[in-house]
Amino acid sequence: MRTYASVPFSQVKINGPFWSERLETVLTKTIPSQYAQLEKHNMLRSLKLPQPVPPLTIPRKPDGFTTEIFWDSDIGKWIEAASYALSHRRDPVVEAQIEAITDDLEKAQAPDGYLNCWYQEREPENRWTNLRDNHELYNAGHLLEGAVAYFHATGKDRLLVVMERYMDHVASVFGRGPGQKRGYCGHQEVELALVKAWQATGKRKFLDLATYFIDERGAQPHYFDIEAQARGQKPSDYGQGTYEYSQSHIPVREQTKVVGHAVRAMYMYTAMADLAAEHGDAALKRACEVLWRDVTETRMYVTGGFGPSASNEGFTLDYDLPNDTAYAETCASVAMVFWAARMLNLDLDGQYADMLELALYNNSLAGLSRDGTQYFYDNKLESDGTHRRWDWHPCPCCTMNVARLVASIGGYVFGLAEREVAIHLYGGASATLPVAGGQVTLTETSNYPWDGAIRVAVEPEGTGGFTLSLRIPAWCKGATLAVNGASVPVKPERGYARITRAWAKGDVIDLNLPMQAERSWANPEVKVDVGRVALRRGPLVYCLEQIDQTLPLSRLRLPRTATLSARFAPDLLGGISLIEAEGLGLVDSPALYSDTPPTETPAKLTAVPYYIWCNRGANAMQVWVRE
Amino acid sequence: MRTYASVPFSQVKINGPFWSERLETVLTKTIPSQYAQLEKHNMLRSLKLPQPVPPLTIPRKPDGFTTEIFWDSDIGKWIEAASYALSHRRDPVVEAQIEAITDDLEKAQAPDGYLNCWYQEREPENRWTNLRDNHELYNAGHLLEGAVAYFHATGKDRLLVVMERYMDHVASVFGRGPGQKRGYCGHQEVELALVKAWQATGKRKFLDLATYFIDERGAQPHYFDIEAQARGQKPSDYGQGTYEYSQSHIPVREQTKVVGHAVRAMYMYTAMADLAAEHGDAALKRACEVLWRDVTETRMYVTGGFGPSASNEGFTLDYDLPNDTAYAETCASVAMVFWAARMLNLDLDGQYADMLELALYNNSLAGLSRDGTQYFYDNKLESDGTHRRWDWHPCPCCTMNVARLVASIGGYVFGLAEREVAIHLYGGASATLPVAGGQVTLTETSNYPWDGAIRVAVEPEGTGGFTLSLRIPAWCKGATLAVNGASVPVKPERGYARITRAWAKGDVIDLNLPMQAERSWANPEVKVDVGRVALRRGPLVYCLEQIDQTLPLSRLRLPRTATLSARFAPDLLGGISLIEAEGLGLVDSPALYSDTPPTETPAKLTAVPYYIWCNRGANAMQVWVRE
Repeated sequence: MRTYASVPFSQVKINGPFWSERLETVLTKTIPSQYAQLEKHNMLRSLKLPQPVPPLTIPRKPDGFTTEIFWDSDIGKWIEAASYALSHRRDPVVEAQIEAITDDLEKAQAPDGYLNCWYQEREPENRWTNLRDNHELYNAGHLLEGAVAYFHATGKDRLLVVMERYMDHVASVFGRGPGQKRGYCGHQEVELALVKAWQATGKRKFLDLATYFIDERGAQPHYFDIEAQARGQKPSDYGQGTYEYSQSHIPVREQTKVVGHAVRAMYMYTAMADLAAEHGDAALKRACEVLWRDVTETRMYVTGGFGPSASNEGFTLDYDLPNDTAYAETCASVAMVFWAARMLNLDLDGQYADMLELALYNNSLAGLSRDGTQYFYDNKLESDGTHRRWDWHPCPCCTMNVARLVASIGGYVFGLAEREVAIHLYGGASATLPVAGGQVTLTETSNYPWDGAIRVAVEPEGTGGFTLSLRIPAWCKGATLAVNGASVPVKPERGYARITRAWAKGDVIDLNLPMQAERSWANPEVKVDVGRVALRRGPLVYCLEQIDQTLPLSRLRLPRTATLSARFAPDLLGGISLIEAEGLGLVDSPALYSDTPPTETPAKLTAVPYYIWCNRGANAMQVWVRE
Repeated sequence: MRTYASVPFSQVKINGPFWSERLETVLTKTIPSQYAQLEKHNMLRSLKLPQPVPPLTIPRKPDGFTTEIFWDSDIGKWIEAASYALSHRRDPVVEAQIEAITDDLEKAQAPDGYLNCWYQEREPENRWTNLRDNHELYNAGHLLEGAVAYFHATGKDRLLVVMERYMDHVASVFGRGPGQKRGYCGHQEVELALVKAWQATGKRKFLDLATYFIDERGAQPHYFDIEAQARGQKPSDYGQGTYEYSQSHIPVREQTKVVGHAVRAMYMYTAMADLAAEHGDAALKRACEVLWRDVTETRMYVTGGFGPSASNEGFTLDYDLPNDTAYAETCASVAMVFWAARMLNLDLDGQYADMLELALYNNSLAGLSRDGTQYFYDNKLESDGTHRRWDWHPCPCCTMNVARLVASIGGYVFGLAEREVAIHLYGGASATLPVAGGQVTLTETSNYPWDGAIRVAVEPEGTGGFTLSLRIPAWCKGATLAVNGASVPVKPERGYARITRAWAKGDVIDLNLPMQAERSWANPEVKVDVGRVALRRGPLVYCLEQIDQTLPLSRLRLPRTATLSARFAPDLLGGISLIEAEGLGLVDSPALYSDTPPTETPAKLTAVPYYIWCNRGANAMQVWVRE
């Protein structure tokens, strides 16, 4: 069923200016500073299972929960991000750090393979008693992803062996066999990690366990009910109120609405798409497609953000997309990139790549500061100036998520079939790929996302004829294409211009994707956006930051008749394209209420890409501008 | 310093249709149903100090507080409202109810005069230990107001004697003498009640005590600090965070910003205006004027609502006037009517009467349902349909506040000076008043607020020449005036057309106040109202209720070019004037985000007076309509 394969980022060289800068920042600033934060906040110490047990670093909330319970996952995610860095360039310091962590984990691991530093240190008697709330398998999943990444980067399998032992234990505890618990994690994640382990090792047991977890989810009698009763609690006392929170309210194949905690949802949909591909499971693929349509048609921010509400860190109602209280967690957008990439491998359909690009360039990238050491957890679309970046967080999940995404950005560029190479993302990348019986080196050169002039050099070596499929983004109007200088009509099939020929060395494709500064309007069911307009250019959504305006944001509007123009500002924020327009502003300050309207005067509006906002100090910001 | 006196409502006959209907509803429905609620919710029982002490009806909040602590005040306020009803027409049932309450209070009163049913029943050892939080004098104030009202209505002074004994005790406990506590109440109210007692009895001790409470407020060392320390608590642990909450952060004469709990503020400003008049205290009057300007210029809803925030039931920042979360407590608007009436007696200035009228006809009246038995506590200016009226409330303060206001509406109609009668409010009222050495009977006839055609018949009896001052509301453009059919130019002085002549029997004044359906715009500093417009006609602010529209409210707008027209709908809600306009609406439901704007089609907009919204079931509502 999977028709395309991703090309691992380690085989893709990033050389365009936009991603080179982000990648370099993550490798040299973000990953080392995150290690320092793990150290500073006692998180690395937590692996050592010290006696006597130290007091909590993060006090329990009134309901007894502390995010310290999933520190293992943060360490796993850091290992993953750091390993991706090692794939770019080996670094003995980082390797020694990961080896030291591996030492601790090896020592901590119980004789039966169990490995969870929280439980082993603080409540060993309670392991596997609260999958609903306590992230036990979520921790395992992230450590497993870290182990796979480290193995890929260095060939060293010590951590992977530890995790395989742990997964063997998990597989012995959970399943449908006699004496086994029919459980699964309240926070999905281990499912997609297990698929990665299967793909890395070829060991079927990983895939089987992932399949069990997805298939069992939402079955009746409900595992979380049984488990709560075993703890002596009433299932109806569940703090989240509904199992929609963890997408376990009904079996996954029956789910048609995206609900609950957004990151849990996106990780689950990713694993569902993985398993649809691995098993050729049409029902699972169909469920993914239905959920995809639901989220993209009714429950998504224009910035590619997901989950409006802080109360459940997730989804609420169709078209409920408040701007100033938007949660739109960085992790949820990063996870959407994962899901979209899987969908794109199931079907070469530009809608998936468009979404991947939107979530990547906007809500996800916004999560990381320009200097690579500050973060957003929630990504509001409007701020009065009080929303600001932070250095660290009691729940630092987003920090390592954006780091691992940027560090592996090359993995989202190409899609590979037997006789076809698809280019999903532009921005300057090259790779040598196996196709049609030989190898082809593709070198894509552009200043994307600032400019849509793209050149692809094709250098085949022993290949037969094959198809090169170039993505034509849905946002683009008037794309043009030339092969070796000869114009080719652009007739995209489901978002891709597919050129099939016997490629020869020196062949050059010139693709031009005109980028207009454009307006975007929301469906009027999104009440807060009625009468407002968003700005975008190419893959980037823009916003107004107060610092660039001559009047307070709330006094500005952009009439529908105003011309938008784009201008590259080389000295601003490392070089970005601005969108500028002659808007109108309210300058006077009349009586509190008056029977004459406040007067408007022309006022220049300057918009910057959303992903780069709040890098010049906290200041007010708006994505949706009054018309 | 007081230049005008109010005319007691008992001397004013209301005969116009608007207020006759509201008054009749309050007398026949609201006051009896409130008595039934007091009974149903154990509140009358609480006066009987039963042993053993029954469990709480209203459980304590996490901070230990229960609104049951101020039930005495609710009973006092009901006595006041019911006594006003008795002033209109005696009723042996109601008198028996009040007499029975008086029996209970007489029995409950301690030998030293102390009288607080909560403390005497549940924690007698703690009396006068927490004035900051526990409403002890607030309870006393409302009971005292009730006693004064009952005395006025019936001449029976038994309750007043009980309350005088209590006030004597209070005056012995609090003051600047040796051994006295330099305290005052955290919730102002007793101050204005004491002024009423002074005015009713001529006993100076009431005025002295009121004066002490106002003068002492905010003095250092701070009484609430001393009191907290005496309880073994840290003053800095105060839950409200700041003494601004109770306007005791600085002495009242130094206050220049309206802050804190809105009802406490308004009750205090009322007492300040009272005392400014009683003492000719220019500094106190000046403080009132500064605070008046502050609240009307920066911190008031267009509906005459005050205090945007639920968290402190009060004021926040200049121009912070959110619509969908507006608190705008009914009590705060009712109290603004009280304050404005006092200011109007200090200075015959139309700004005070305009505000009185605005707060009265809009935010205050909205607090009572058409049938007189349901209420709003908070008066939102926008609702998604979930905000609805209720029968009763754990804190039922607003119910009796609106009842006592309507029951005494006649008291706000006239202002009286030695040789002048001012008419502040129109709508059909008559009174015989002492002026210029004789008596004059004034009969004002109109269908106000639906129509601005007003006739005043003047029937003097033994008077000399005097001035009749007719209020020309600030909202009115093009007022015309005729005396005995002869046109008189309208040249209002500070909002009043003053006609001085030797009036003769049969003199008739025709005042026409043209009422246009009009737009009102907010100062752009009110961010949520930018790009929006409110509708008003005469004294009434309008709103769109979903039930009257053809499209969802959020899809409608009212372009600035659309003509507004008013139409009287005799069969709707007892007969109201509507404002209608051809607006525009968004009918289609395109993609979630689109590069073409949603299309607009003509859509009729129908607005109803704000005060009458939510009388046809809960439905969505907007005061501020998108332009």
